[in-house]
Amino acid sequence: MRTLYHFPLDPNCRIIRLMLGEKRLDFREAPPSMPVPDAPVMEIPTLEDVNGAQFPYMMVIAEYLDESYPEPPLIGRDIIERAEARRLTNYFAVDMGGRVTKPILFEKVQKPMARLGAPDSTTMRTAVQLSTKYLSAIEELYEHRNWIAGGSYSLADIAAVAQISVLDYVDLIEWDRYPVLRRWYARVKSRRAMEAILADRIDGLPPPKHYSNVDF
Amino acid sequence: MRTLYHFPLDPNCRIIRLMLGEKRLDFREAPPSMPVPDAPVMEIPTLEDVNGAQFPYMMVIAEYLDESYPEPPLIGRDIIERAEARRLTNYFAVDMGGRVTKPILFEKVQKPMARLGAPDSTTMRTAVQLSTKYLSAIEELYEHRNWIAGGSYSLADIAAVAQISVLDYVDLIEWDRYPVLRRWYARVKSRRAMEAILADRIDGLPPPKHYSNVDF
Repeated sequence: MRTLYHFPLDPNCRIIRLMLGEKRLDFREAPPSMPVPDAPVMEIPTLEDVNGAQFPYMMVIAEYLDESYPEPPLIGRDIIERAEARRLTNYFAVDMGGRVTKPILFEKVQKPMARLGAPDSTTMRTAVQLSTKYLSAIEELYEHRNWIAGGSYSLADIAAVAQISVLDYVDLIEWDRYPVLRRWYARVKSRRAMEAILADRIDGLPPPKHYSNVDF
Repeated sequence: MRTLYHFPLDPNCRIIRLMLGEKRLDFREAPPSMPVPDAPVMEIPTLEDVNGAQFPYMMVIAEYLDESYPEPPLIGRDIIERAEARRLTNYFAVDMGGRVTKPILFEKVQKPMARLGAPDSTTMRTAVQLSTKYLSAIEELYEHRNWIAGGSYSLADIAAVAQISVLDYVDLIEWDRYPVLRRWYARVKSRRAMEAILADRIDGLPPPKHYSNVDF
């Protein structure tokens, strides 16, 4: 059985869950295996495919999945569109993920769960301010293209929605300020692969009511 | 003319220079364009190809080059070998780069150049201690395979040599402790694509004598 080791709200894990969903590939979900002393900590996400081979790192899994299960292609159709899909995937998954989503996830979700105290207001303010740049970038791209990286729904959209859906879970997106982003996200939300993402619930931290509403 | 915007000792830039060298692609070198107020800072490395298209981010450039100029293939020949090449590229370029090479480069090269004072001894000690894990990993891989990721010289070797060559420039590798690593690196050093890397010199910071010696 194909197994994905993941955390529900981790954006890189959501990217792989969404890719598996778009390609209609069944998988069993598992939490990361508990590290034993002296053993290396498991990378999250890690995918174990039906052939038993294990793949760590989001982008390694993404390229592997698109090569092994080519339909539908999610990293673009020609060389330039593929480079653009990868560029935007890096932009959202690494840049936005590292500077916005991960700090917010740590302050708003991991700190309370680990009883490490209240969110740090400076970290939160900085991350929220930075988020506007990435949210505007999605609007800019979607105003000029059918999907973010070009003609087709791609890993770039998936990388962006992985961040947006996490920020929306903690109710940090002022949707009224981003009408184009909202149109794009409403269209993404309707995709079948999104059902699992919109069903995620963290104990003691419910999302806002509109979170799982496709017509929000 | 093809242009690579890069810094000489930056490991991710070295990866792209080595790829271009292996594929025998001519390019003009340029420093990153000076940021003007309110303009985004240029990502390094950025490649401008002969078609005028610009690509930022090491891995985006690497995938683009391997798709546009397939000979010799540098990301493996079948799907599993490609996943392994990408996994190890991430391991050396992101993990080792972020935890070992970049901190050492900052303390030993960038701080002196910017007159920011002496290297921090705790940061240096931690990075050097961590480096042993990655150097041993290269030895482990090379004892069982023709090249690091499998049968052919690949991006995984290039990602590892980008770190090793920088650490060697600042004379931080105790070669006598790593006989297998030394055999692998001597073989890599003989490749024509390495000539430009071994010719790098930073003003006021000469490398050790053995640095550019292929039979070291």
